[in-house]
Amino acid sequence: MTVRFGLLGAGRIGKVHAKAVSGDANATLVAVADAFPQAAEAIASAYGCEVRTIEAIEAAKDIDAVVICTPTDTHADLIERFARAGKAIFCEKPIDLDVARVKACIEVVEETGAKLMVGFNRRFDPHFMAVRKVIDDGKIGDVEMVTITSRDPGAPPVDYIKRSGGIFRDMTIHDFDMARFLLGEEPVSVLATAAVLVDKAIGEAGDYDSVSVILQTASGKQAVISNSRRATYGYDQRIEVHGAKGMAAAENQRPVSIEVANGDGYTRPPLHDFFMTRYTEAYANEIAAFIAAIEKGTKISPSGADGLAALALADAAVQSVKEGKLIKVG
Amino acid sequence: MTVRFGLLGAGRIGKVHAKAVSGDANATLVAVADAFPQAAEAIASAYGCEVRTIEAIEAAKDIDAVVICTPTDTHADLIERFARAGKAIFCEKPIDLDVARVKACIEVVEETGAKLMVGFNRRFDPHFMAVRKVIDDGKIGDVEMVTITSRDPGAPPVDYIKRSGGIFRDMTIHDFDMARFLLGEEPVSVLATAAVLVDKAIGEAGDYDSVSVILQTASGKQAVISNSRRATYGYDQRIEVHGAKGMAAAENQRPVSIEVANGDGYTRPPLHDFFMTRYTEAYANEIAAFIAAIEKGTKISPSGADGLAALALADAAVQSVKEGKLIKVG
Amino acid sequence: MTVRFGLLGAGRIGKVHAKAVSGDANATLVAVADAFPQAAEAIASAYGCEVRTIEAIEAAKDIDAVVICTPTDTHADLIERFARAGKAIFCEKPIDLDVARVKACIEVVEETGAKLMVGFNRRFDPHFMAVRKVIDDGKIGDVEMVTITSRDPGAPPVDYIKRSGGIFRDMTIHDFDMARFLLGEEPVSVLATAAVLVDKAIGEAGDYDSVSVILQTASGKQAVISNSRRATYGYDQRIEVHGAKGMAAAENQRPVSIEVANGDGYTRPPLHDFFMTRYTEAYANEIAAFIAAIEKGTKISPSGADGLAALALADAAVQSVKEGKLIKVG
Amino acid sequence: MTVRFGLLGAGRIGKVHAKAVSGDANATLVAVADAFPQAAEAIASAYGCEVRTIEAIEAAKDIDAVVICTPTDTHADLIERFARAGKAIFCEKPIDLDVARVKACIEVVEETGAKLMVGFNRRFDPHFMAVRKVIDDGKIGDVEMVTITSRDPGAPPVDYIKRSGGIFRDMTIHDFDMARFLLGEEPVSVLATAAVLVDKAIGEAGDYDSVSVILQTASGKQAVISNSRRATYGYDQRIEVHGAKGMAAAENQRPVSIEVANGDGYTRPPLHDFFMTRYTEAYANEIAAFIAAIEKGTKISPSGADGLAALALADAAVQSVKEGKLIKVG
Repeated sequence: MTVRFGLLGAGRIGKVHAKAVSGDANATLVAVADAFPQAAEAIASAYGCEVRTIEAIEAAKDIDAVVICTPTDTHADLIERFARAGKAIFCEKPIDLDVARVKACIEVVEETGAKLMVGFNRRFDPHFMAVRKVIDDGKIGDVEMVTITSRDPGAPPVDYIKRSGGIFRDMTIHDFDMARFLLGEEPVSVLATAAVLVDKAIGEAGDYDSVSVILQTASGKQAVISNSRRATYGYDQRIEVHGAKGMAAAENQRPVSIEVANGDGYTRPPLHDFFMTRYTEAYANEIAAFIAAIEKGTKISPSGADGLAALALADAAVQSVKEGKLIKVG
Repeated sequence: MTVRFGLLGAGRIGKVHAKAVSGDANATLVAVADAFPQAAEAIASAYGCEVRTIEAIEAAKDIDAVVICTPTDTHADLIERFARAGKAIFCEKPIDLDVARVKACIEVVEETGAKLMVGFNRRFDPHFMAVRKVIDDGKIGDVEMVTITSRDPGAPPVDYIKRSGGIFRDMTIHDFDMARFLLGEEPVSVLATAAVLVDKAIGEAGDYDSVSVILQTASGKQAVISNSRRATYGYDQRIEVHGAKGMAAAENQRPVSIEVANGDGYTRPPLHDFFMTRYTEAYANEIAAFIAAIEKGTKISPSGADGLAALALADAAVQSVKEGKLIKVG
Repeated sequence: MTVRFGLLGAGRIGKVHAKAVSGDANATLVAVADAFPQAAEAIASAYGCEVRTIEAIEAAKDIDAVVICTPTDTHADLIERFARAGKAIFCEKPIDLDVARVKACIEVVEETGAKLMVGFNRRFDPHFMAVRKVIDDGKIGDVEMVTITSRDPGAPPVDYIKRSGGIFRDMTIHDFDMARFLLGEEPVSVLATAAVLVDKAIGEAGDYDSVSVILQTASGKQAVISNSRRATYGYDQRIEVHGAKGMAAAENQRPVSIEVANGDGYTRPPLHDFFMTRYTEAYANEIAAFIAAIEKGTKISPSGADGLAALALADAAVQSVKEGKLIKVG
Repeated sequence: MTVRFGLLGAGRIGKVHAKAVSGDANATLVAVADAFPQAAEAIASAYGCEVRTIEAIEAAKDIDAVVICTPTDTHADLIERFARAGKAIFCEKPIDLDVARVKACIEVVEETGAKLMVGFNRRFDPHFMAVRKVIDDGKIGDVEMVTITSRDPGAPPVDYIKRSGGIFRDMTIHDFDMARFLLGEEPVSVLATAAVLVDKAIGEAGDYDSVSVILQTASGKQAVISNSRRATYGYDQRIEVHGAKGMAAAENQRPVSIEVANGDGYTRPPLHDFFMTRYTEAYANEIAAFIAAIEKGTKISPSGADGLAALALADAAVQSVKEGKLIKVG
């Protein structure tokens, strides 16, 4: 069986998914839609698919699944429409910035029985998957403490910041999901600190650029997240899991792994410059997992519920910073 | 000039300092005192010094400085006595488990004009000193986020736990000092979580074995501390400083740095098994700095005020865990 | 312009190139030929191309270039035929195991003005290319000593060994090419030792499985090559270049870079299991360079002359082992 | 029992041994002799020992053992004198630059039954010892290929070069000994190349500064040695042992192991600047082993025979370069 895809949104991340779908032996990219015809046509010509309207894709008989890469504020509506149209749905995170809206959307998904996967791509990074496997294989015993370091090479434009829902809902949300993925137990409390150290304009927009978070589960397992909108040495993405019997860590990735030595010391090149190159394999694996779940009719993960849980942690972090106290969740 | 030393306390850490003093070209170990004569005699015979009573050392004309390695509850009293006796004082951390008592003790030190150095040995670790130097040299710009990971290979006996003042005052206190050393700005708030994951008996004794802490300074700089009383792979001691222009980190140390590869992968040996071997150079450098400060009449660091500041952070962490909120300090 | 390809040989390495050609935006795979129709059809169906005979590809107007992946003893003949047919030719190493035959073949290529690239894929590995760039940028000064370590995870079947021309012509030949690539000056002498340490059957077939070689150039630059047909920890592929101003090295690659720590130490997974996964990017880059050279009409490298030079070094190594002396080349 | 030492030679390496002897709980430094009274007095005053003549040390009843750190051309004579005087002897390498003289000296040692240890300090480096232990524990199976990289930060003065016996007898000799230590089987053949790449004056003095050597044993085990008199990044000292079941390596050592990351990449500091700091522990362990062998009456290693074997390999390397052929040894 080949899964036939429609792509909604032909921007930066849309291109990533167009390539992943086209390169997968079990999928075909049938059509692409975008408010900007040129963007849609660029993808259509590169991958040999049609340009259609969203409505046409919704009504199409030759399309089994859609990938939603449109702006965030359209996600929930599109998910509902395509769930009702009987398509399998892959949606970039987040479903929405508002918890109530996300819940309503998930209800529609459940009523229709639609398949929905949320784009937490990092779960599909081969290195992070290998850490998860080390845990599953019992090699480090019960998980006790998770450490996630996630720093962007630079801050996005303030315009983006304003629409983003803030650092916790835009950036840390990936780490909240990763913490849940690694802890294997739901966090029940959130402690967070936040500051503006990188760019005053971010503060003036009501957001932060440097945050630290502690999550704790009912049994006392802890996850610590460290985020910054600045890292001169590249896209810093590390995870570490400390357990009763040992420790497992995934280190940073760089495009070339060479070392040059001289009187200044031994130097290895900077890391990948951002998520597009760092998570190339993760994006391909993610779409492959979505396709496999459709083909085999198996459960989809990460689901809408995972998207909701991460958003709830982000909301709690915002509240913890404001109120200077531990916020209970779940 | 040679600084002539008396050693108070001939236990495990006393031996470390006896060796450091004896091995230092600018110092002589003149006498040792201990409640257990055998312990004192062992040191006396190994290093060719006399066994004396504390009173005799206090009154001695041939002793310029003392190293206090007796049980914690005697530290403050001894500091006061030897300050009044005109000796320079090196005291193992902590001065006392009670902030008020520490303050009173420091007052006496100030009145007498005595020199007092507190044993935060990690400031003298060559690797951590090199990170501090990188900061001082401006190589990573303004410090933004500090990460300290500190895990003991195993938990101490519960009897020790009971007398220790709890994990924050006994173990994390080193990391509070390290955070202050690296941040270069005083923390003004403390957020802490704590759990019992390693040994239930520790919980029954009213303490924790796994804790996470976030400190924040007035300008928003953050330090995250992760502690566990368990680490199967050795004594885990890492610091990382993230700044506006770059990042500096000191990695773990192991006694032998070899690598063995086979079908299971590439394996390097475990880390040092505990602080005695991990911080050998730090202990020697620490005493050398104390001796140098006496000889040159320069300011001593870390001082009693540093001991007090770290203890205040520990107290705030205890309170943060109990009350589930951010605690202001300073 | 799109370069239209015919593929000769649909075996293991043929599949690698079929994928590389198909995945390249500037190329199309038009047809494939193989003595085993099933092998050809498998590629034809996977990449949507035709199955044709070699003769048909030779005569085809819709084919600009061929990739030769047939058995070694057919390479020289096919190169000559396709040179005369006016096609651009990419040929897997070696052109032939006999220097005289290689020379005759290169003469035909020169007479016809055909473009010929020889498959020394490692020159296109991104890590090795980065080392070459470090040299070109003058960062390590004049090259003085090159060290190449190349060990296969396991020995090939003895049947293969017998047809291979021996370890120097089959395996070390890649390292001879890499040495030339890195030295930037032709070797003028070869010293080699060889032994059978891995598998006696290899010795009985008249070959060796463990060899060490020293090359030296006229100015005294040296390259040391270490080969083994055994490596329990994966496919060991390292290069190091020591120069007047510094050193540059490319380290081994592994599919996942995680680390697991426990009482046995810190363990990273084994390396890639062989060249197909280790050099995935190199194969894609190699074909892309071939395509680019055709499109732009630029000089092709590595050329037939490079193939000949590496083979001459291999022959000299065989002679050095037999005669126990330094053999002059070039 | 305490072993009472006389030190012959109070130069750079004499100081290293004076410190090692003084710091060893089972030894006392009784006296020091040097042609330059000031040098001897400096050591005498630092370590609280007497200055005596060589004759006085030879005749002394209160001295059990001597450490010979005088110029190379006095070694053999002094060994013979002190062997006849019934002292245990530790002699810095080499015994002599002439094989015949070394053999004659060893005969005297054997006749007198004196204990003689030769200063191949690297055998006592904790990291190299750990590699040897990995071999002894059978973890990598039968040794097949040894790789030794040894590069000095800079060339010694040409005056020194002239007296040194040449790079093979002065510098590579340590690697010849290390190869024997790691191979566990005697080399039977030597292939060597040599060039002048660092300093023309070295060539004018009749020596080389960049050499590569291959040793092979009767069973085919190989050791490759790479030496240079130049390394901008510090004192480069690496060993690697490849065996039937795996590989073991000791990596380079640096005084501080930190990492600084910025837009230029991740940089670790240069290595130790030379052997005095790199091999501090090795020198202490070496003297401790000498003392232990005296106390326990056990066999001493490395012995005079080890010194002779390494020198024979050096002579063979010189001959191999001159004659351009493989030289048989042993």
